[in-house]
Amino acid sequence: MAKVAIMGFGTVGSGVYDIIKTNREKLYRNTNGEMVDIKYILDIRDFDDHPEKELFTKDFNDILNDSEVTVVAEVMGGLHPAYEFTKSLLESGKSVVTSNKELVATYGTELLDIAREKNVNYLFEASVGGGIPIIRPMHQCLTANNIKSIAGILNGTTNYILNEMIKKGKTFDDALKDAQNNGYAERNPAADIEGHDACRKIAILSSLASGYAVDYNDIETEGITNITLDDVKYASAMNSVIKLIGYAKLFDDGKIYSIVSPMLVKNSSPLAGVDGVFNAILVTGDCVGDVMFYGAGAGKLPTASAVVADIVDAVKHFERSKKIMWVKPENNIMASSEDKSFAYFVRTTASADDVAKVFGKCEFVDNVVAGESAFVTAEMTGSEAKEKFSKLDIVSGIRILD
Amino acid sequence: MAKVAIMGFGTVGSGVYDIIKTNREKLYRNTNGEMVDIKYILDIRDFDDHPEKELFTKDFNDILNDSEVTVVAEVMGGLHPAYEFTKSLLESGKSVVTSNKELVATYGTELLDIAREKNVNYLFEASVGGGIPIIRPMHQCLTANNIKSIAGILNGTTNYILNEMIKKGKTFDDALKDAQNNGYAERNPAADIEGHDACRKIAILSSLASGYAVDYNDIETEGITNITLDDVKYASAMNSVIKLIGYAKLFDDGKIYSIVSPMLVKNSSPLAGVDGVFNAILVTGDCVGDVMFYGAGAGKLPTASAVVADIVDAVKHFERSKKIMWVKPENNIMASSEDKSFAYFVRTTASADDVAKVFGKCEFVDNVVAGESAFVTAEMTGSEAKEKFSKLDIVSGIRILD
Repeated sequence: MAKVAIMGFGTVGSGVYDIIKTNREKLYRNTNGEMVDIKYILDIRDFDDHPEKELFTKDFNDILNDSEVTVVAEVMGGLHPAYEFTKSLLESGKSVVTSNKELVATYGTELLDIAREKNVNYLFEASVGGGIPIIRPMHQCLTANNIKSIAGILNGTTNYILNEMIKKGKTFDDALKDAQNNGYAERNPAADIEGHDACRKIAILSSLASGYAVDYNDIETEGITNITLDDVKYASAMNSVIKLIGYAKLFDDGKIYSIVSPMLVKNSSPLAGVDGVFNAILVTGDCVGDVMFYGAGAGKLPTASAVVADIVDAVKHFERSKKIMWVKPENNIMASSEDKSFAYFVRTTASADDVAKVFGKCEFVDNVVAGESAFVTAEMTGSEAKEKFSKLDIVSGIRILD
Repeated sequence: MAKVAIMGFGTVGSGVYDIIKTNREKLYRNTNGEMVDIKYILDIRDFDDHPEKELFTKDFNDILNDSEVTVVAEVMGGLHPAYEFTKSLLESGKSVVTSNKELVATYGTELLDIAREKNVNYLFEASVGGGIPIIRPMHQCLTANNIKSIAGILNGTTNYILNEMIKKGKTFDDALKDAQNNGYAERNPAADIEGHDACRKIAILSSLASGYAVDYNDIETEGITNITLDDVKYASAMNSVIKLIGYAKLFDDGKIYSIVSPMLVKNSSPLAGVDGVFNAILVTGDCVGDVMFYGAGAGKLPTASAVVADIVDAVKHFERSKKIMWVKPENNIMASSEDKSFAYFVRTTASADDVAKVFGKCEFVDNVVAGESAFVTAEMTGSEAKEKFSKLDIVSGIRILD
């Protein structure tokens, strides 16, 4: 009998509770005969009407000091007190599983260190891509590969907004309002539309792929607030779509370049067809080539499904931490935008002559908006792009995913 | 130091060799510090020019009787002697990993039983979807889910052929010749185009999803040899594509229905965009909803990538068999075509009146071929479809994936 605790009884926490109760039989089989039993639910709110109200506690120490509890699901979100709680639990020899991408991206390296030292597990399948299996497949199934690159649609809110623009011709503002009305975007949507959420997630995937901690503060992050319906129309004319991409490229010398940015994705890419709030992560390995993982990137039961899978894994591997996800690098491993060139799609009001003077020979695109021209550049580094863009009146310049 | 043996030095076997040699560092890190070392390569052919020719043996007993060898990769293919070798190895306490779908589909249940009894592992990530992580993600990451259905593009050869018909307007015969010339199809292509290869794979996935052995002999299997360019054109007019689908539906009462058949797939499905020799498996779980796994379904390094991941897993979990993949069912668990209804796309030379008499009110499709009409039926069981089809002159009747 494995006793577990759930910290945070919000959307994901109640989903974890529901799955453990509903799919009891299945979990019993999959832990090879250990019953997974919820002993505590930590939440500062009252749940007096809950059928198992006796499980609820407001005192973290109830969980920390109960030696029967071996696995804890931290699904409270935010950095504090989630960090302090997780640290104490790992130090006391309990495994912790989480959906908290912010915590993993911020304190993951330290918490993984502690888990390894204490021979327990810190697992976070649900922190990226919601219910999509991605952390474990990348770590275990692609273990024979040197990962070369990752390109992910990692945020369902922005994908929904862009999809409404692409498929229904809505403006950004209308699509955002629509997302808010449908519960896909927060009232304050900044974390999503400015790319911060995707940034945390590509930081986690970059760390996992390289084996070294990638600090999300080192990742250039651009959201979708500047994307207009005209950009989307141009993309469509080019048999492409605009997606917010969390991107990482791993170089042979061990350096890694990560960025979050709207990018033009060709319709022939399996990422192009990822609609609505779905997420997908395209991983390229030196042996396996391209593999893609697709599914619901958020939501109560999908995310809880990943948390419960981690609980099962932690129960099966209790007191046997075998996972070296990543460590702190000794030297700087971050490549810069000077190391990774992109081609750009550019709209400008400048003349074709002026374009040629600055960008050289470019491939022009059929016009969508009167009074401007649009073209595709050669691949340029970050500074080249900046310098050239500053010399012309640029309406927009969007990276093209290669 | 983990000593492994490779049985069969064909395409996959040499890929396994290459990866272990090339990505040595990475494997060392991922086994948490065990060097994976090849001690034997079994093949009946001579490899006297090979730089490590001393590794080669023609005598299986060299491997069987060497207690230093703990993990063996069976990548020889075929049923015999792969079955006898695998059985002996497992019985002697060695773990075996394989890409041999035919063996897993035929003798998997018995071999898994022996592995469990001997506390070793029999792993087969590479047997379905080549390099695509699917077996482990379904077993571990979706462990909290009751799987409701699986729909997979499981055979790259047929997907290439259909894709050439769809995208380039080739006839089936021309597309097949093309596949043969490109090395995507065998000179005798029956196993692929008749659906037998996909049948083995959906049998394995069905067993994994249900926890009970599904015999591939119980799976109705229809290939793509009857699909014509006109069918493909009709599909296109219906915003759909024709794909060879390995399909399984799991019912709440524990029964399972499996079939391999060409199906109309709507363009809005993530399966529709899976082009060329790529494979993809769409899994629907009761918690996670739809997730899809996409990648190269065959090929030397992709398949070897999955075999090596299994080797790493077996090395890390030596003498600790924790995997109950599936067991032999006590009763018949197979549902029949009477339990699972499909809608059909039907082409006929009969009049609209006759169609209405047999099929009731149907949705007619814009005509592509003169002298016939085409329509979509209501959902029908297998016997209903058979009975109604026999009453009219039917050009083709193709299931529609729901």
